[in-house]
Amino acid sequence: MKVEDKRLKERLKSQINFIIEADKLKQIYRQNILLDKSRRETDAEHSWHLALMVILLYEHVSHKDINILSVMKMVIIHDIVEIDAGDTYCFDVEACMDQNSREQRAAERLFGMLPIDQADEFKNLWEEFEQQVTPEARFAGALDRLQPLLLHCNTEGESWKSHGITSKKVIERNKHTKEISESLGGLVDELINDALMKGYLAK
Amino acid sequence: MKVEDKRLKERLKSQINFIIEADKLKQIYRQNILLDKSRRETDAEHSWHLALMVILLYEHVSHKDINILSVMKMVIIHDIVEIDAGDTYCFDVEACMDQNSREQRAAERLFGMLPIDQADEFKNLWEEFEQQVTPEARFAGALDRLQPLLLHCNTEGESWKSHGITSKKVIERNKHTKEISESLGGLVDELINDALMKGYLAK
Repeated sequence: MKVEDKRLKERLKSQINFIIEADKLKQIYRQNILLDKSRRETDAEHSWHLALMVILLYEHVSHKDINILSVMKMVIIHDIVEIDAGDTYCFDVEACMDQNSREQRAAERLFGMLPIDQADEFKNLWEEFEQQVTPEARFAGALDRLQPLLLHCNTEGESWKSHGITSKKVIERNKHTKEISESLGGLVDELINDALMKGYLAK
Repeated sequence: MKVEDKRLKERLKSQINFIIEADKLKQIYRQNILLDKSRRETDAEHSWHLALMVILLYEHVSHKDINILSVMKMVIIHDIVEIDAGDTYCFDVEACMDQNSREQRAAERLFGMLPIDQADEFKNLWEEFEQQVTPEARFAGALDRLQPLLLHCNTEGESWKSHGITSKKVIERNKHTKEISESLGGLVDELINDALMKGYLAK
């Protein structure tokens, strides 16, 4: 076997091992429930839903030369660290305290399974998402908050009610959306006002 | 409200209605099971897994100027028609007979919920995937077959066994992979040979 062929085969082996390991993201259940209320949503389903939203909603982003492929990659991989670190409920103050160190360790182990260049690419994309500085990360971040908001508003706020979540907390969590998109920011305001009026969110 | 703002708000409303409708893809269960064997995989999870595979494996595609963003969009939307048409098991000859007409009707209704330009884009992407002619569609199609193959091989072929699937059928279903990628084609051969040797597939 030629050296180049051998190298390619080694790469493919690492990639397939990672793809198999990533199957576990289908076993990480989030706090929000599906619209038919049959069960909680998995991280894999949430990530797919975000990718669909990227395709449909990027026209609403104020920043015009956004790299949509980069946003797509970001939303596909942004929760993979939860395979090791678990889903951290965004309103659980205690769990959020060591979230970063748990997720950093997870990123090292999981992305470290890949060929070095792809490990770096995934680590960088994940960190870009976490830091919420670039327009791509901010758009991905806004969708990561809008998607559960849509689910909560269409399931009578069942999960919000069970955790006693107030509108103040949800407003705070979604306040940056208007900076990336005026129309998505307007939608978020409408959704929260409506949820408050219907009693899905506590005052 | 300005005419342009009103138009944008109308577009956003259609887009959000579609995004909410698409949640149903998390309730369409496929034939294959998750690697922990806890339950069957959903279409949304399968589509996410394919998108991850696109990012990691496109370097193996022989055709060098493949449009990766187009492949990503294709795998994210390729199964949405199953919300109406249901999952058609690829080895169920009878169900496959009217699959196309069921899915065409589904595409009309579902993609028809979107603003006309996006409805056209989604319909075209879905038809491109179905026709399996462009390198983008052939790569997406090869992954759509490789992903369940990986799951079957790592769950002792449980789902294959329950349907009495033979290696001949699986070889036939995956035979085009080598045309899009030599290394992925080689992987498919190895996986099928191994599954046959272990008795996961019938002779």
